[in-house]
Amino acid sequence: MHEPAAYFFLQMAVILLACRVVGWLGKQIGQPQVVGEMVAGILLGPSLFPEASKLLFTQETRVVLKVGAQLGVGLYMFLVGMEFKTALFRSRIKSAVSVSVAGMLVPFILGGLLAPWLLKFPGLFSEKIDVYQAGLFLGAAIAITAFPMLARIIYERGLSGTSLGTLALAAGAIDDAAAWCVLAIVIASFGGGDVSIFGMKINPAALAIVGGASYATFMLTGGKKLLEKLDTIAKRDGGVSSTTLGIVLLLFCLSAWFSDVIGVHAVFGGFLLGIAMPRGIVTEEITKKLEPFTVIFLLPMFFTLSGLSTKLEVVLEPSVMLVAVVVLMASIMGKGVACWAAARLHGEDNRTSLAIGALMNSRGLMELIIINIGLQKGIIGLKLFAILVIMAVITTVMASPIFELVYGSTCKARGANRLG
Amino acid sequence: MHEPAAYFFLQMAVILLACRVVGWLGKQIGQPQVVGEMVAGILLGPSLFPEASKLLFTQETRVVLKVGAQLGVGLYMFLVGMEFKTALFRSRIKSAVSVSVAGMLVPFILGGLLAPWLLKFPGLFSEKIDVYQAGLFLGAAIAITAFPMLARIIYERGLSGTSLGTLALAAGAIDDAAAWCVLAIVIASFGGGDVSIFGMKINPAALAIVGGASYATFMLTGGKKLLEKLDTIAKRDGGVSSTTLGIVLLLFCLSAWFSDVIGVHAVFGGFLLGIAMPRGIVTEEITKKLEPFTVIFLLPMFFTLSGLSTKLEVVLEPSVMLVAVVVLMASIMGKGVACWAAARLHGEDNRTSLAIGALMNSRGLMELIIINIGLQKGIIGLKLFAILVIMAVITTVMASPIFELVYGSTCKARGANRLG
Repeated sequence: MHEPAAYFFLQMAVILLACRVVGWLGKQIGQPQVVGEMVAGILLGPSLFPEASKLLFTQETRVVLKVGAQLGVGLYMFLVGMEFKTALFRSRIKSAVSVSVAGMLVPFILGGLLAPWLLKFPGLFSEKIDVYQAGLFLGAAIAITAFPMLARIIYERGLSGTSLGTLALAAGAIDDAAAWCVLAIVIASFGGGDVSIFGMKINPAALAIVGGASYATFMLTGGKKLLEKLDTIAKRDGGVSSTTLGIVLLLFCLSAWFSDVIGVHAVFGGFLLGIAMPRGIVTEEITKKLEPFTVIFLLPMFFTLSGLSTKLEVVLEPSVMLVAVVVLMASIMGKGVACWAAARLHGEDNRTSLAIGALMNSRGLMELIIINIGLQKGIIGLKLFAILVIMAVITTVMASPIFELVYGSTCKARGANRLG
Repeated sequence: MHEPAAYFFLQMAVILLACRVVGWLGKQIGQPQVVGEMVAGILLGPSLFPEASKLLFTQETRVVLKVGAQLGVGLYMFLVGMEFKTALFRSRIKSAVSVSVAGMLVPFILGGLLAPWLLKFPGLFSEKIDVYQAGLFLGAAIAITAFPMLARIIYERGLSGTSLGTLALAAGAIDDAAAWCVLAIVIASFGGGDVSIFGMKINPAALAIVGGASYATFMLTGGKKLLEKLDTIAKRDGGVSSTTLGIVLLLFCLSAWFSDVIGVHAVFGGFLLGIAMPRGIVTEEITKKLEPFTVIFLLPMFFTLSGLSTKLEVVLEPSVMLVAVVVLMASIMGKGVACWAAARLHGEDNRTSLAIGALMNSRGLMELIIINIGLQKGIIGLKLFAILVIMAVITTVMASPIFELVYGSTCKARGANRLG
């Protein structure tokens, strides 16, 4: 059938249509757009219409979808990185630390406890994985928070600057950063055979850990310093010129490529660059220029790719169903309940604590990114992948009704809490 | 080597670096960014560093580059379509008509005269082409104007609303629209064997001509009416929401896909949709949201793809060199000189007429789009392609010095005349 580009336009039309329709349906029951898109991705996959899915997303066309999805997720993590503000950590530091420690410690304890049991089931994890790696990966998958969605909800409901707003943002940011670090370590420790660089045999785990740590250190010190020049240039030009944007996109590609080559994932390169960017006019204008296309055109490619790997029917097997229920419970306990309890213990009222628990518990797109990396790197198998997709959807769906119940009387959602 | 996505990030880093470096060098000698990127694309191709080019842009990775380039060009033509303003044609209609008629008639006469001669050289045109198709294609290739670059230069030098500005914009718009129509007819008439739709055998030329004409008529009447709803929605929402942008991108993909399937090219779908969009808040905000990524990230992929098809060494052959010189002269006569003369005859002063000639003569990216379609559809061969690439670069390079000479004392370029 025709040119690859024509085929691509058809695929994208179907993808964007599904995202809009399911997103609209979701909004009717008070769910944010991201939930609709997570579900749209699953609908486009083999779970519901296997024949149609196979016909539209043929193997030969997957490479374009894959590259587009990676670009989307990489740019998205770059945008997320730019949203992190260190000022957050300074105010309300004590409550934020307790909530975030709870939201990190409990997931990793639960991950560690569950790992030996899960490893008994064939097909959940890779056969090469050890119990520590499995526990850490599961811990990170439970600990992750939909930080961008959380930030968007707080902004849209006018909660920025309130006790709840500041607390949730700071705790979410800390937990997400920690979960991504752990994930990087798991990926790094999970490399295959030796890599040959300039004729030297190098252990891939060593390369990833040393390379990743050195790169992160460089980006957050010297790299950050160098990037400050962009701020000077933008102030001189009265905004981000196309030259500056071109340079930033060039740096983004370099950073994504380098991260991938040393064996951590391209998204870390994007995320690190985002964190290192100078705050102010540069981050604001670049976000305005890149976010619409990234979120509305590229991310749906990622949701679709993720959906194409999701075979929901595997969960119908009784033993897998049991694991799914246990993982879901552990996730809600490890994040929602733990953060609620930590906030309560720290003297927050029940309403605020519930809202914090609900926000910290919703995982959205970030969970999908983590588990797709896990699947791609061969850490987890299709069964655990499907289980974690279900967990991601359910915990994200839970957030809105709880939040509505608790804060609904105060302020209504204005619909567009798009990021997640 | 690694993942397709990692490879893609590396390719894009090299592409963006080349575009920035060559663009910067071009600016030092007063050339707009688009000239730099045209040259950067050629540098990345097989003409200069064949081995490096082959190593970086392997055959397997071409499909991603191709789809990205088509997406970029399609979105770009959509943005160009949105820039067309019918109000332009109303003021100064008489001069505009003479200039545009000259800039259309002379190219097609020269194209018609040259075609029989060019058909004698093997490898310039496809063997299946007849003398009318060859003449029309060559006419369109000579008649095309870098309308977006022209609009940008006029805007940036503060010439909007002046005699020169209005005249050049109107004439450029008319000529470009006409050249694209002729190209659509050539492509349509050039279909291969019969196409089978629902079991009926349909002549592809008939499908393309009837389908293309019906689709264009629909888009500019009923489609345009329907799209006006977007204006109402945007006014209600106080801007273009992510839902609206999602719908517009969906329509774009549908339009591009449909145009490709009926046998005209995806770019026409984008262009038509752009022309049919409601003017005002919708076009302004969508341009702001889509232009940066399209122009700075996606278009360089097109320049690279175009460069990968450019084998400059074919022009070293004496007979091809002769053709190149003749085609270049015909192009400058047919557009630059013809439009200058028409403006003079219509009573414009020599300074204005020279500036109009220079602007109408520069072809930039638009020429590359036309000849890449010609190459892709098998209308022209690699030799004529290389000749027309050289013609496009030289006529575009000519514009700035002439314009500077004539208008340099009045107003200086402010560098960012990025579109072309």
